[in-house]
Amino acid sequence: MSTGTRETIIEAVDGLPAVRITREFDAPPERVFDAHVDVDKVVRWLGPRGLTMTVQRWDAETGGGYRYVHADDRGEYRFFGSFHEVRSPDRIVQTFTFEGFGDSVCLETMTLTELPGGRARLVATSLFDSFEGRDAMLASGMETGVEEGYEKLDELLASR
Amino acid sequence: MSTGTRETIIEAVDGLPAVRITREFDAPPERVFDAHVDVDKVVRWLGPRGLTMTVQRWDAETGGGYRYVHADDRGEYRFFGSFHEVRSPDRIVQTFTFEGFGDSVCLETMTLTELPGGRARLVATSLFDSFEGRDAMLASGMETGVEEGYEKLDELLASR
Repeated sequence: MSTGTRETIIEAVDGLPAVRITREFDAPPERVFDAHVDVDKVVRWLGPRGLTMTVQRWDAETGGGYRYVHADDRGEYRFFGSFHEVRSPDRIVQTFTFEGFGDSVCLETMTLTELPGGRARLVATSLFDSFEGRDAMLASGMETGVEEGYEKLDELLASR
Repeated sequence: MSTGTRETIIEAVDGLPAVRITREFDAPPERVFDAHVDVDKVVRWLGPRGLTMTVQRWDAETGGGYRYVHADDRGEYRFFGSFHEVRSPDRIVQTFTFEGFGDSVCLETMTLTELPGGRARLVATSLFDSFEGRDAMLASGMETGVEEGYEKLDELLASR
């Protein structure tokens, strides 16, 4: 039982075309990190509820790449990117494109820090190539997908 | 023989932590693109004169990665990154880190457009994660390496 917060904070970064997400988990950095690289775990939590994730490629290592599809009754949403650096247990840098909506690319940096009580704080920064792209993402309702995904990750981390 | 310019323009992008490089070549996009992905060609032109480039990894494809060392009498300079997208004949998006100087990462997007007379225009944008990082790069004398590299690429393209 933890007394720490599990609120998801999503905010624009001052002066940069970037969004920063801060979230704490009731598990140490090693386990949160593992849930981001082990594809059998990733498919159980990434993205909003009600979507099925099909992975076409997943090489979560420095210089690797990924490609997956989220699908529901309304259609398919395709994503791909590369892993710039996967450095256990506390840092993942990757690129991200939502395929079919132009060529915009995000650079995403996730870091984990250890908190007292076997907990971890995750900070994920997405750098966009324009302020317009950043603001469109913030206006898109993306927080639902992020929050639901992290709730599923809470459940996965609790089920060991 | 061409009447086009081969001036290298290096400029800060207004309002973004980015640098844009514009350069024309006396060769069509396909050949300039090939010289960016074929590692036997890349080692002949990338970087300033007087350095030896040793490639440790080179998978120039969507979701691939690279790692290389530039060396001279004074030392070694190590670089690594991933290829977000390699889309022949006109677009390469990759990440870039100068190893050993913190964890800063650039997102680099290169596009090629066809010009009359069998020529090509290259536009390469490097997106930094801070304005300080961008300004430090601009103040570093990086233009010498960029200009000398593109002069060597001119020579390579002329030697077919």
